[in-house]
Amino acid sequence: MRVALGVEYAGNGFFGWQRQAEVDSVQARLEAALSKVANEPIAVQCAGRTDSGVHATGQVVHFDTNAIRGDGAWTLGVNVHLPDGVAVRWAKVVDEDFHARFSATARRYRYVIYNHQFRPGILRHGVSHYSGQLDEEKMHQAAQVLIGEQDFTSFRAVQCQSNTPFRNVHRVSVTRQGMYVIVDISANAFLHHMVRNIVGSLLEIGLGKQSVNWMAELLALKDRTKAAATSKPHGLYLVDVTYPESFELPKLPLGPLFMVD
Amino acid sequence: MRVALGVEYAGNGFFGWQRQAEVDSVQARLEAALSKVANEPIAVQCAGRTDSGVHATGQVVHFDTNAIRGDGAWTLGVNVHLPDGVAVRWAKVVDEDFHARFSATARRYRYVIYNHQFRPGILRHGVSHYSGQLDEEKMHQAAQVLIGEQDFTSFRAVQCQSNTPFRNVHRVSVTRQGMYVIVDISANAFLHHMVRNIVGSLLEIGLGKQSVNWMAELLALKDRTKAAATSKPHGLYLVDVTYPESFELPKLPLGPLFMVD
Repeated sequence: MRVALGVEYAGNGFFGWQRQAEVDSVQARLEAALSKVANEPIAVQCAGRTDSGVHATGQVVHFDTNAIRGDGAWTLGVNVHLPDGVAVRWAKVVDEDFHARFSATARRYRYVIYNHQFRPGILRHGVSHYSGQLDEEKMHQAAQVLIGEQDFTSFRAVQCQSNTPFRNVHRVSVTRQGMYVIVDISANAFLHHMVRNIVGSLLEIGLGKQSVNWMAELLALKDRTKAAATSKPHGLYLVDVTYPESFELPKLPLGPLFMVD
Repeated sequence: MRVALGVEYAGNGFFGWQRQAEVDSVQARLEAALSKVANEPIAVQCAGRTDSGVHATGQVVHFDTNAIRGDGAWTLGVNVHLPDGVAVRWAKVVDEDFHARFSATARRYRYVIYNHQFRPGILRHGVSHYSGQLDEEKMHQAAQVLIGEQDFTSFRAVQCQSNTPFRNVHRVSVTRQGMYVIVDISANAFLHHMVRNIVGSLLEIGLGKQSVNWMAELLALKDRTKAAATSKPHGLYLVDVTYPESFELPKLPLGPLFMVD
């Protein structure tokens, strides 16, 4: 039997999603909790492997098991065995042709910037603090050139293992809510550090250090060394993964927190 | 010289606002940081003494000092000496007739309920989790009877030290944003545990265990034992304190987080 789960986690306190020897990961904790409920070893596949310090409200995973469990076992039951910063939000039995990674047609990330002169006291691990006054309208305008199937070499981490630097960005917006600036970006998939590298360069534009045209120039250069530094991980959330409608997976508000749509 | 500060803090990790021997408090940490910058002992007065686990985005304090310090000393400078969960948001030199507590004409609190079947993974110390489906419209309707100068004995903690059970509630609303239900309440001042006790009874109405008229009945009974249990502290934020315009204190978005107005 194949089961899909929606998982939320606060990435601080974990060395990223992926299981590694020696250090604590979300995957290792989730597999341990599932294995307890299943009473057999469980391995999970996820839609997006998030980096150290990065959060998720909409991570999707699947696993195979021989265990037959009642309603609530894969949600409430698993949550009992998970650390406080990780929670299953929904569970659904799916067909064997569902794969959390390979069936996904799009991923969506939100990057939350706390844009204030002084550091935050609340949710300090859940936002990235940048103190200069950001012009979010310029950032939004600059980001629109990212849309479409393009070579994202300029925003790709050196250690990225993808076979291709091409990705298809479906939608990107930059908006302000009070002291918070939110970058919201959807693509078929993302290169390693792609969102944080894009945000790093958008910050330069928001601060007025670079012109609105700079994003287009960077894309054309296909040179990671010409773009800005990678932005901090704390404000990044994997908020949604899209699958074909036929799988009928549950839909919850994306978040993080009070952000509904 | 008298200085007023706007202070934000995450209440988890502290045994409330007020300085106490033996345990960690926001007041003790703030006074220690201010004393370092002033190079003399500093004692602060606050607008609202929050309980253990309760947060603030809009706490206001004042203190007197002989120290003459430049711009940034009472904000950036103090923040360096504060623990991560506490941050000064603004500082302003004020007249000697300003008093953080006695000059305040109103306080405003927001109570954030995470209303989902399963526990949260993100901001788990910053929301109160209640799993039954809440009808926020009924809660809002029920809460309107609280408005006005009234005897709030039914929502007053046994250990409350106020001379009078009368308070004047100016405004109260209950709204939903996705999985979050927010109770927003303003009054001239609050009795001990008044917001959490009101929320406790509103939850019973939201769950359909009591009728919309129950709040009016409870108010009339003037009996704490007839109302519901005190709600959990984690979702409560002191978001604003009102002072006469003549003091010209800075105004920042209330929060918490993305909540602007």
